[in-house]
Amino acid sequence: MRLVSFRKGGTARVGVRTDAGLVDLSAVDDSLPTDMKALLAKGKGALQRAGRAARKAPAKALVTGRISYLPPVPDPQKIICIGLNYKDHAAEAGLKVPSYPVMFVRFPTSMVAHGQPLIAPRASRHYDYEAELVAVIGRKARNVKKNEALDYVAGYSIFNEGSIRDYQMKASQWTVGKNFDATGSFGPEIVTADELPAGAKGLGIQCRVNGQVLQDSNTREMIFDVRALVYQAARAFTLLPGDIIVTGTPAGVGFVRKPPIYLRNGDVCEIEIEKIGILSNPVRKEK
Amino acid sequence: MRLVSFRKGGTARVGVRTDAGLVDLSAVDDSLPTDMKALLAKGKGALQRAGRAARKAPAKALVTGRISYLPPVPDPQKIICIGLNYKDHAAEAGLKVPSYPVMFVRFPTSMVAHGQPLIAPRASRHYDYEAELVAVIGRKARNVKKNEALDYVAGYSIFNEGSIRDYQMKASQWTVGKNFDATGSFGPEIVTADELPAGAKGLGIQCRVNGQVLQDSNTREMIFDVRALVYQAARAFTLLPGDIIVTGTPAGVGFVRKPPIYLRNGDVCEIEIEKIGILSNPVRKEK
Repeated sequence: MRLVSFRKGGTARVGVRTDAGLVDLSAVDDSLPTDMKALLAKGKGALQRAGRAARKAPAKALVTGRISYLPPVPDPQKIICIGLNYKDHAAEAGLKVPSYPVMFVRFPTSMVAHGQPLIAPRASRHYDYEAELVAVIGRKARNVKKNEALDYVAGYSIFNEGSIRDYQMKASQWTVGKNFDATGSFGPEIVTADELPAGAKGLGIQCRVNGQVLQDSNTREMIFDVRALVYQAARAFTLLPGDIIVTGTPAGVGFVRKPPIYLRNGDVCEIEIEKIGILSNPVRKEK
Repeated sequence: MRLVSFRKGGTARVGVRTDAGLVDLSAVDDSLPTDMKALLAKGKGALQRAGRAARKAPAKALVTGRISYLPPVPDPQKIICIGLNYKDHAAEAGLKVPSYPVMFVRFPTSMVAHGQPLIAPRASRHYDYEAELVAVIGRKARNVKKNEALDYVAGYSIFNEGSIRDYQMKASQWTVGKNFDATGSFGPEIVTADELPAGAKGLGIQCRVNGQVLQDSNTREMIFDVRALVYQAARAFTLLPGDIIVTGTPAGVGFVRKPPIYLRNGDVCEIEIEKIGILSNPVRKEK
């Protein structure tokens, strides 16, 4: 099942993408939450009900016209990002392959939805792209068994973990350079775990800027796979429904290229992950 | 004015501490939000109305019996923590005084309220205390003028920014060691900015474990003061009502002592900031 968050009449809605189009869940079952985090928190049963309702939806439940996407989870309590999680990327950045996951955090204010403009800040010219797989947590998880860790993942999506490199390097902790407003994007859909290989392993992942392929790898190249990341995170803290783990980027980022490539006004940046979809955003200079 | 979040009958409430006791705002003005983030978002006018209502409150609006505190803002969108923000602490940790604020992030799951047990995790014996001043954001802020930055701060509170040192140092980014469940505390109250010196400067700050003074400094010793921190953060991202900036800790933390001092089952850890109050928590070993 493919889940979408979108805006309709100023409020958030959850939709299910079917062969017929995008079904507005609130139009077929008004007992289901209209917010993705709340829907995920209801558990697998509610998701299955949503899927059944969507498949039987009448034509009038289809969203017509242009869809105003929201990030699939607009307000995760935790956006946990993983640094240096592909060997070739650690090497290109001149950094050691980590023996323990490198975790940092983004705020919801740093991300926009599929189709919305990414904002290149005035404060910097060093705005870089990063293609990443997202694991979306579906159940509360703390101190879980490693071989059960994937049971806590509801589905997968795509992130452009856009980074302001000069600010990222101004201090030992990367927070500021990873959190300029509207510099990352998340979406367009959550594909539920049952439709993908376990841990979303073995999927091609690409970043293209204006059609030029700049990152081209496979999710099997991760140092810590989704199972290991959920397990390690949940050893320290409670993961909640709607929390997301943004699993790191492969080689090919802009700041290590000679000459460097940075995102500029008018660019179009696309991240594609096999079987999940394409996340596409135009880039606009901050006014 | 002194603002408190507390739990009554399973739901969150906001209270105002007066000479007569703690006034349950929902009992004196049911048009005011019962959630601190929502109350702050209503702006200064709503806070002033809350203050007036509390001062005129009848005795039956007072909360009687033992108060079940919540963190003053139970669910900030951003918990922005500042590292190495006192010169003497940077020196004791053997690290350079930063030229730009070192920001890292805690999740709401890492904090408990005043009076609740801090949990020493089974996974580590290196559980350290950190006394810190909190600035609570009252108004949406982005790209603000430095000389107006304090206008965005609604008030001040106290944080025990408890840290699991071995996990903090497992990777370049400190996130995991700063986010074990229930290892930090926040509270007991927000003191509105009008009752304190500008930027909460010049206030004594102490950490005591079982009555022994282990940190003893003054908020004027910060490298980046509250004005600078709000200004710098808002150059990168939008601060929202209820976001908090946890402004860093002075010298005296446990892991650099010889021998080191770590928090253990049965300890009582108190953070006191002059004119703001005392945040006190027992320590319990994770079961």
